[in-house]
Amino acid sequence: MIVILKENHDTEQLENLKNWLKSLSIDVHVSTGRHQTVLGLIGDTTVVDADLIRALGIVEDVKLVQEPYKKANRKFHPADSVIDVGGVKVGGGRAVMIAGPCSIESEEQVCGIAESVKKSGAAILRGGAFKPRTSPYAFQGLRGHGIELLLEAKRLTGLPIVTEIMDLSQLDLFDNVDLLQVGARNMQNFELLKELGRLKKPILLKRGLSSTLQELLMSAEYIMASGNEQVILCERGIRTFETATRNTLDISAVPLLKELSHLPVIVDPSHATGLSKLVKPMAVAAIAAGVDGIMVEVHNDPPHALCDGVQSLTPEAFDSLAREIEAIEPFAFKYTK
Amino acid sequence: MIVILKENHDTEQLENLKNWLKSLSIDVHVSTGRHQTVLGLIGDTTVVDADLIRALGIVEDVKLVQEPYKKANRKFHPADSVIDVGGVKVGGGRAVMIAGPCSIESEEQVCGIAESVKKSGAAILRGGAFKPRTSPYAFQGLRGHGIELLLEAKRLTGLPIVTEIMDLSQLDLFDNVDLLQVGARNMQNFELLKELGRLKKPILLKRGLSSTLQELLMSAEYIMASGNEQVILCERGIRTFETATRNTLDISAVPLLKELSHLPVIVDPSHATGLSKLVKPMAVAAIAAGVDGIMVEVHNDPPHALCDGVQSLTPEAFDSLAREIEAIEPFAFKYTK
Amino acid sequence: MIVILKENHDTEQLENLKNWLKSLSIDVHVSTGRHQTVLGLIGDTTVVDADLIRALGIVEDVKLVQEPYKKANRKFHPADSVIDVGGVKVGGGRAVMIAGPCSIESEEQVCGIAESVKKSGAAILRGGAFKPRTSPYAFQGLRGHGIELLLEAKRLTGLPIVTEIMDLSQLDLFDNVDLLQVGARNMQNFELLKELGRLKKPILLKRGLSSTLQELLMSAEYIMASGNEQVILCERGIRTFETATRNTLDISAVPLLKELSHLPVIVDPSHATGLSKLVKPMAVAAIAAGVDGIMVEVHNDPPHALCDGVQSLTPEAFDSLAREIEAIEPFAFKYTK
Amino acid sequence: MIVILKENHDTEQLENLKNWLKSLSIDVHVSTGRHQTVLGLIGDTTVVDADLIRALGIVEDVKLVQEPYKKANRKFHPADSVIDVGGVKVGGGRAVMIAGPCSIESEEQVCGIAESVKKSGAAILRGGAFKPRTSPYAFQGLRGHGIELLLEAKRLTGLPIVTEIMDLSQLDLFDNVDLLQVGARNMQNFELLKELGRLKKPILLKRGLSSTLQELLMSAEYIMASGNEQVILCERGIRTFETATRNTLDISAVPLLKELSHLPVIVDPSHATGLSKLVKPMAVAAIAAGVDGIMVEVHNDPPHALCDGVQSLTPEAFDSLAREIEAIEPFAFKYTK
Repeated sequence: MIVILKENHDTEQLENLKNWLKSLSIDVHVSTGRHQTVLGLIGDTTVVDADLIRALGIVEDVKLVQEPYKKANRKFHPADSVIDVGGVKVGGGRAVMIAGPCSIESEEQVCGIAESVKKSGAAILRGGAFKPRTSPYAFQGLRGHGIELLLEAKRLTGLPIVTEIMDLSQLDLFDNVDLLQVGARNMQNFELLKELGRLKKPILLKRGLSSTLQELLMSAEYIMASGNEQVILCERGIRTFETATRNTLDISAVPLLKELSHLPVIVDPSHATGLSKLVKPMAVAAIAAGVDGIMVEVHNDPPHALCDGVQSLTPEAFDSLAREIEAIEPFAFKYTK
Repeated sequence: MIVILKENHDTEQLENLKNWLKSLSIDVHVSTGRHQTVLGLIGDTTVVDADLIRALGIVEDVKLVQEPYKKANRKFHPADSVIDVGGVKVGGGRAVMIAGPCSIESEEQVCGIAESVKKSGAAILRGGAFKPRTSPYAFQGLRGHGIELLLEAKRLTGLPIVTEIMDLSQLDLFDNVDLLQVGARNMQNFELLKELGRLKKPILLKRGLSSTLQELLMSAEYIMASGNEQVILCERGIRTFETATRNTLDISAVPLLKELSHLPVIVDPSHATGLSKLVKPMAVAAIAAGVDGIMVEVHNDPPHALCDGVQSLTPEAFDSLAREIEAIEPFAFKYTK
Repeated sequence: MIVILKENHDTEQLENLKNWLKSLSIDVHVSTGRHQTVLGLIGDTTVVDADLIRALGIVEDVKLVQEPYKKANRKFHPADSVIDVGGVKVGGGRAVMIAGPCSIESEEQVCGIAESVKKSGAAILRGGAFKPRTSPYAFQGLRGHGIELLLEAKRLTGLPIVTEIMDLSQLDLFDNVDLLQVGARNMQNFELLKELGRLKKPILLKRGLSSTLQELLMSAEYIMASGNEQVILCERGIRTFETATRNTLDISAVPLLKELSHLPVIVDPSHATGLSKLVKPMAVAAIAAGVDGIMVEVHNDPPHALCDGVQSLTPEAFDSLAREIEAIEPFAFKYTK
Repeated sequence: MIVILKENHDTEQLENLKNWLKSLSIDVHVSTGRHQTVLGLIGDTTVVDADLIRALGIVEDVKLVQEPYKKANRKFHPADSVIDVGGVKVGGGRAVMIAGPCSIESEEQVCGIAESVKKSGAAILRGGAFKPRTSPYAFQGLRGHGIELLLEAKRLTGLPIVTEIMDLSQLDLFDNVDLLQVGARNMQNFELLKELGRLKKPILLKRGLSSTLQELLMSAEYIMASGNEQVILCERGIRTFETATRNTLDISAVPLLKELSHLPVIVDPSHATGLSKLVKPMAVAAIAAGVDGIMVEVHNDPPHALCDGVQSLTPEAFDSLAREIEAIEPFAFKYTK
């Protein structure tokens, strides 16, 4: 951490600051220039609250040199983490296919899709029961009943399941869910993150719509600092000025997150683009960039899906995508330290 | 709502769509061009799910003509709403000053500041008990104990109080809080919004960091559609590429929200800019633009505030700001239909 | 084009508008609803100035249905355009490698790199002579002398060359340059675009830092409308809130531009990310998404490059990248109508 | 400037770097921590190219501590600059009104508006002759003839004039123009900036649509470093995700620019919002925040203006705005060091 002091700062206050930092086991190196004096803080600066320092009367600015996350940081955990989702390894070298309907609508629908995507090679079944919708008048999901239907599909196919939790009050319903998803809009719902950190279950954490990668990793750190280190990161598109797609899939997040963190990284091209025609090119691009998994929406009747059908693949299109991913994966970029 | 059809669409499917729309009491006018056929949907289109239409095989795109919010919409409620916060009218013509510390730290601190800001003209006391912090290692607020201290300051000064709720599980602690704040990061925490819609209390809804005004109004609509129409909107800065300020205060949101909605609008220059030196110019600018209130951080010892001290005013600076607001308010812009 | 009228609009003014539109050979279909009247404009609406309509007293809003570009629009030119750059076909099915130094520094440097990248399979040589730099105190390029050195490398290797033009006054120096680059900061330098539209040479048009794809295509339309249809589009990263990379490479621009336009599309992963370690994963991802070419910075001594060295590959790293692109290309996504 | 070295950096290379910096009269202070070694560069670091340092093999990152602009920097020029525009002082304490049509259309139009806005208190006449338009098919301005008409209005009223220059080839036409405007899309047209820096005329520099304030000041620095210190800065709205306005007027830019620089600052609420109904509230807000001037579009027949009429005021509305500005100005925020 670098602390830039104001010109003509009070020297007694500077001594107080240095003594306080020393009490936190932080060494302070002082560089004095003509216009500026700069403090270099050496040691484990994650214990120092940068906002607190910035607020001091003698301080002009604070610049972070070290990443503020520890448990999610590859520097302190060089080996890739492999997360076990109901027996499926995520982060273990082979890209994992997660597929299923955006919204769960009926037993026939979810079970039919589950069997179909399993046949095409999907390893985990996705399906939305609680749906975050911008409008209170839009379909909000089958909620508890949706989870029951998803569990039925799990029993039928043996596929582990992932679905979104929107509030702590829903937690009991997720007992038999293998992977709990935190949606983009909840990435900084810190109370939810802390509570999920007390579970013994893998969490799929989606990047917020205008979040930086560091903010995503700080949210992962919330879960991990509470004791649960089974976190899978998900890039699902960020908000940009482009209007031709719903959001912009940031594929550079894949190699960057692999470098900054040891956690597995997946992408969701369906939500990122909002357009089924872009799912295939973006999925193969993400595979080429070295992603650990792809989460894709599949619907047996996309034009009639209750929500977001415009971004769903048919089972046939998903099967074709799975074949292309199989073909391209051997040539994918591999992160190495 | 305008529905743009694909070239060479199936005419039977078009008939099905028109019949379905008619069953929703929507009239459909068809305009046929050389390259495009366009449907104009006439009637109460808030009952039509645009995503559903967009997902149909024959549809190329959907464009909204009417605002998707009703209860928050000034078109259907031309008169200004006035919200009563513990006896203080917000939206009633005079700008209201809301002031207090970012974080509640101790009884002395919050009571001292409360007395001081009351003397300067503040009508509502603010103070943070539950603090949303990016880092799990940063101070998270005094939580339940913080609310007790805030209630103590309310008893002492008679000022109604506002503080942030971060999760439904905290609701019982807010029984005697006059105004419940939903923070920017929770603006689209839809489960929280729905539950707050079942209360009989005013809600202060902050705009999300990268939300449009329509999204803010849709979140207000969530609260209102559940039965609680006492909503105050708050502009608190949006994320932009500028790095000299924490966020960019969007003052044009004030006259725009007044036009789009009948709900009162306040601004928070402290959080928006993150810099105490900008609080005064931005507060007077917002007053000039016709805002219904200003929420400002005041700390008796800004350099030692536990969080965000860099954006707090001293009680003296707040008093000076209050005098300037008093002087400029008679010349402020007033929205008229 | 859809024109939404104000409630209680003047009927005489509406007649005037309809008559004026008819004089432009535009048919007008009127849909009258309870709250809104909507006009559907049918015909070649690219001749209608939407701003002009929006400015009329009776108009509330205008929504575009048809793309405002014609010559760049795939709807009117279904077949892929193939651009000939000094004998090299861009857009002809195989991805083209464009490589070379960020800044031209000396004859030895540019010729050495040219020979090396040619050996690795590069088909076009790039090199910066005029350098747009944020600071007036930073190195501005060798300018005219830089172009002479680049021409020397062309003579030596036979590779066609591409370099950036920053102002019309430099045009004479570009006589023997095969492909003229318009930089991101000049994407909306309309006077420059118009003049380049009078040349008989291919133009490489880079997307602006916060431009939409439609704006990029409108800038291509400027060049094409002036008579020069040899335009290659280049995605080079857009500005987002992410700070870990210089910009965010928008790979979804590749399949989208292929759908919207018949023009070839290349990407520049070096400038987009600003980090040499991300060039390989992003280049292979773009290839997988179906791009027509990759433009990469190569420097024989990246740590001493005069500008932007941090994003340059060594010749060895470029050779390795070229091998991986060769391996992955057969499995790339191919756009089909 | 702070230079963060890679772990396990080569010590000989570090010595080379330190020696090179010393040759530039830069002192280097080294702080060695467990995970990181940090160099503090002390002296006039504007001569050091940060990109060059960042590109070195031993360097992980570079952080700027000092602003990279000198001539525009208030630290080195504490007193406000006052720019003389044809006898009108901009930055001299009183806010200046600049008004006129978006596009010049005819002698009657521009002269009529000029007389009218002069009567209402405008001190400088604006009018567009060269118009930057997104579409090549939209009206591009009367160009040279437009400037003649503007000069006619100057002769008639005695008002100094401001109009936009889009390319160096137009320079001769601007001989009698008092203030040359650089538009937002040309803010980083560095060749144009350098050439304007060789003139002896005031330049009105508009902030780019997604530029930071530091980038704006670096562009001012380009003009000033070439010898012309008569620069007026203009905030005209930045691109955000909001769609209800064309851009978002960043009023916090006013007090921030006053603090960072000694140059005068004006705002353009007409272009920023694109909506005439927002011009008044945003203009008075900017005045309250301490701006040095307001540039407003006025048209005698807004609904028929050839471009951007939707954002123009009538002469009557402008007169009313001028009265409100007069009333509110005595209560405006004043920047003091």
